[in-house]
Amino acid sequence: MEKWRAADRLLKFSSRFASAVNWNNSCKSKQGKYFYSVATTVHRNPLFSSISPDDISYFKTILGERGVVQDALALDAANTDWMGKYRGSSKLLLQPKNTEEVSQILKYCNSRCLAVVPQGGNTGLVGGSVPVFDEVIINVGLMRNILSFDKVIVSGVLVCEAGCILENLISFLDDEGFIMPLDLGAKGSCQIGGNVSTNAGGLRLLRYGSLHGSVLGLEAVLANGTVLDMLGTLRKDNTGYDLKHLFIGSEGSLGIVTKVSILTPPKLSSVNIAFLACEDYTSCQKLLLEAKKKLGGILSAFEFLDSDAMSLVLKHLDGVRNPLPPSIHNFYILIETTGSNETFDKENLEAFLLHSVESGLVANGVLAQDINQASSFWHIREVITMHPHFVVSSKSPILLWRVLWNWELTLGVYLKLS
Amino acid sequence: MEKWRAADRLLKFSSRFASAVNWNNSCKSKQGKYFYSVATTVHRNPLFSSISPDDISYFKTILGERGVVQDALALDAANTDWMGKYRGSSKLLLQPKNTEEVSQILKYCNSRCLAVVPQGGNTGLVGGSVPVFDEVIINVGLMRNILSFDKVIVSGVLVCEAGCILENLISFLDDEGFIMPLDLGAKGSCQIGGNVSTNAGGLRLLRYGSLHGSVLGLEAVLANGTVLDMLGTLRKDNTGYDLKHLFIGSEGSLGIVTKVSILTPPKLSSVNIAFLACEDYTSCQKLLLEAKKKLGGILSAFEFLDSDAMSLVLKHLDGVRNPLPPSIHNFYILIETTGSNETFDKENLEAFLLHSVESGLVANGVLAQDINQASSFWHIREVITMHPHFVVSSKSPILLWRVLWNWELTLGVYLKLS
Repeated sequence: MEKWRAADRLLKFSSRFASAVNWNNSCKSKQGKYFYSVATTVHRNPLFSSISPDDISYFKTILGERGVVQDALALDAANTDWMGKYRGSSKLLLQPKNTEEVSQILKYCNSRCLAVVPQGGNTGLVGGSVPVFDEVIINVGLMRNILSFDKVIVSGVLVCEAGCILENLISFLDDEGFIMPLDLGAKGSCQIGGNVSTNAGGLRLLRYGSLHGSVLGLEAVLANGTVLDMLGTLRKDNTGYDLKHLFIGSEGSLGIVTKVSILTPPKLSSVNIAFLACEDYTSCQKLLLEAKKKLGGILSAFEFLDSDAMSLVLKHLDGVRNPLPPSIHNFYILIETTGSNETFDKENLEAFLLHSVESGLVANGVLAQDINQASSFWHIREVITMHPHFVVSSKSPILLWRVLWNWELTLGVYLKLS
Repeated sequence: MEKWRAADRLLKFSSRFASAVNWNNSCKSKQGKYFYSVATTVHRNPLFSSISPDDISYFKTILGERGVVQDALALDAANTDWMGKYRGSSKLLLQPKNTEEVSQILKYCNSRCLAVVPQGGNTGLVGGSVPVFDEVIINVGLMRNILSFDKVIVSGVLVCEAGCILENLISFLDDEGFIMPLDLGAKGSCQIGGNVSTNAGGLRLLRYGSLHGSVLGLEAVLANGTVLDMLGTLRKDNTGYDLKHLFIGSEGSLGIVTKVSILTPPKLSSVNIAFLACEDYTSCQKLLLEAKKKLGGILSAFEFLDSDAMSLVLKHLDGVRNPLPPSIHNFYILIETTGSNETFDKENLEAFLLHSVESGLVANGVLAQDINQASSFWHIREVITMHPHFVVSSKSPILLWRVLWNWELTLGVYLKLS
C-alpha cells in the first residue's frame, strides 16, 4: 500500500477505535485510586454493541473453542490490571494465534461496533491493558514465535511475533551473543508487542536509546482489519513515511502490533555495578553528566531512588537489603558499566567513584564484588514497582508517585522534582 | 491540538501538497542523468497555478523586498541541485525569517494552488530540494537562531531554528563540551531542518543512532499554514501520538520543519582513527561485528569504500592520498573510536587491529599518529560525494552507484551488494 495513503486510511479507519480506546483510558484514569484530579463519573458509550451469542459463535469459527475464553477465572485475571488498581467487566477474552486471526477479529468487531482492548503481558502500571466496561479483550500471548534472527550479515536484527515474552527474547539472544536493547523489571511477563505499543523505556535506555531508534519495523492490524506491513529490517529506510513510529507508544489505539523487527546489539563481556548515595539532587545530576563524560561509552545504566523510595523498598519488600551502611541518605544511585575489557572497565569505574567521593558528589558507595552482589543491587531497582503489596501497603500515595517520578528520571527524562 | 486529530488533519491538509512533492520527486528521478529505469516524460500538472504579479506583491507585504528573490543569479543557484544533475525553472525564491512567515506563505500558496518546494542547504544528492518546473522555492536559511541549550539539568538538549547550518551547531556545542549526534560531509552548508526532513544518517549513526532516536521535538508548518508545535524536550514523551516522526525523512512533503529540539551527547576527549584494507566483503562484515564486540562502547565510526570508489577518489579529488602502501585492495575501512581514556583507548584499538591482522580479516592497516593524519583519513570518506567534478568526470555511473551504496553500507544499512 502506498505509504501516505496508508497513513491517511490508518487514521480514518482507526478514529472510532482510537476514540474508544482513548475514552476508555481517560475513564480509567479518573477511576484510578491514585488519580488526584477532580473525579468524574464516566458511563459506557451506548454506541458500542454488547456481545451476543452469534458473536461468540462467529469468533469460535475463526479461533476454535480454545481461542474464545469465557471462563470466569481467566476473565477475572484479564479484567484486572497487574497492580490491582483497575478492574473491567469483560465477558470475552480472545486469543488469536496469528495475524490473520487478529485481522478477522478486528474486522468483525469494527462491523459490529464492539469495543475492544488489546492486551499483552498485562504488566502496565496505568491500566491501559484492561477493559473499563465490557470491551472484548484481545490477547496476543499465543503469538510467540521468533521468526528470524539475522547474524549472517552481522546486523543483529531480530524479527518475532508480538506475543513473545521479553525474557524469552533476552535468553534467545544471549545464546546468540546478542542482547535486547531494552530490559524491564517485568521482563518475565511483559511482551515485546506491549513494550513497543507503550514505548517502554526500561533499564537500558541510557545506553541503547528509545524504541523509536531500535525498532526497525512493525506489522500491525488496523481497527478495520487491514494488515499494515511495515516489517522492514533496514537500519535506515527513507522510502515514504515511517508509519511504524505512530504505533510506538500509541497504546494500541491505532491498531494491534502483531510482529516486531528490532535491532539488537552484541553482548559485551565486562559488566560492573556500583551503588551510591548522594545528599542532594543537584549532585545526582552532576554525577550523571560526569559519568557520561568519564565513563564514556561503557556507561550502560544510571538508576535513581530517593530516600522515601528506598525506605519503602527496604520496609515492604522481601529479600531487599541496603548495600550501604544504614545511615539515611537523601538519594541513591545505581551505576552500571558494560564494556569489553574487564580490567580496564573496573579500574575506570573505581577511579570515577574515587573522584566522585573526593569531589563531594557522592557521600558513600560500594562496588559489586560478584554476580550475586550485582544482582542484589539490581533487585532493589527492579522490585520498586514489581510488588503489589508495595503499592497496597504504601501509606502515602505521594511517595509512590515520587517513586514513579524517580523511575521516569532514571529513564533519562530528567523531570524537575523541585 | 489533540494529537490524533492533528495527525488526521495533517494528512488530509497535506495530501495535495504531498502528492505535488512526491510527483515532483518521481519526475525528477526519471529525468536524472543516472536513473536507469525506463524513462517517461512528465508534464507540469495543469492544476497548479502560475505566479502572478499579485502573488509577488502579496509575498512582499509578508516578507518585505529582501525576502522575495527574483534575481536571475540567485534563482539559478536555487533551481540547481548541488551535484548539477537536476535543474528547475522557478521564478521565485522566498526567504522567511520566522515560523509565522512560513505559515503565511504556505497558507497563501495553498489557497492559490501554487506548488512549492522546501529548500534548506540544497546539499541533497537526489534533487529533492530543487523544483522540477516553476514551483515556489521556500528557503529557511534565514531562520538560523539557536533558541536554547539546556546544560543546567545536564540533559544536553539543543533547541534551534531549522535553518541553522550543521557546522555552526557543531561549533556551538563544542564550546559547551557537547557534540551533535550527527555529522555529514556537507556539514558546512547543510541545515538541521534539512537533515531532519531527509533523516540524514551521517558519520555518527553507528554510535548515536538515527534522528528518530535523537530528535526530541519539532515545530512544523503544514501545507495549509497550520503550525504544529511538537517541540518537546523530554527524552520520553508518550502523551498521544509521536507525530514528529512522520516529518523525519518525509522530505518536506507533509510540511516544512521550522524548529528542532535535539539531544546532544557530551564530548569525549580521546579519539583514535585507523584506515584498513580488506580483501573480501565477508571480512568487512566480520570486522564490523568484531569491532562492535572488542571495541565495545568506544567504537564511534565504521566507514567503508570499495576499490573502485577508492580509485575514483584518488584519481579525481585534490589533496587525497592513500594512507596505505599503493598495492590494490578490494575494500577499505575507516574505524574511529571515541572514549574518555587516551591510553586505554589507543591500546584497545591497537590490540584489536593486531588481532584482526593475525586472524586474516585485515590485509593491511595504519593508525593515525596525529590530528592531521586523522583528518586526512576522514577527508577520503568525506569527499566521496562532495566534489561535483567527481560525479561529472565519472566515466562509469555504475561506480558512482556503488560509491553511494557503500555510503549507505557505512550508515549501517548493510545492503547486500552481492
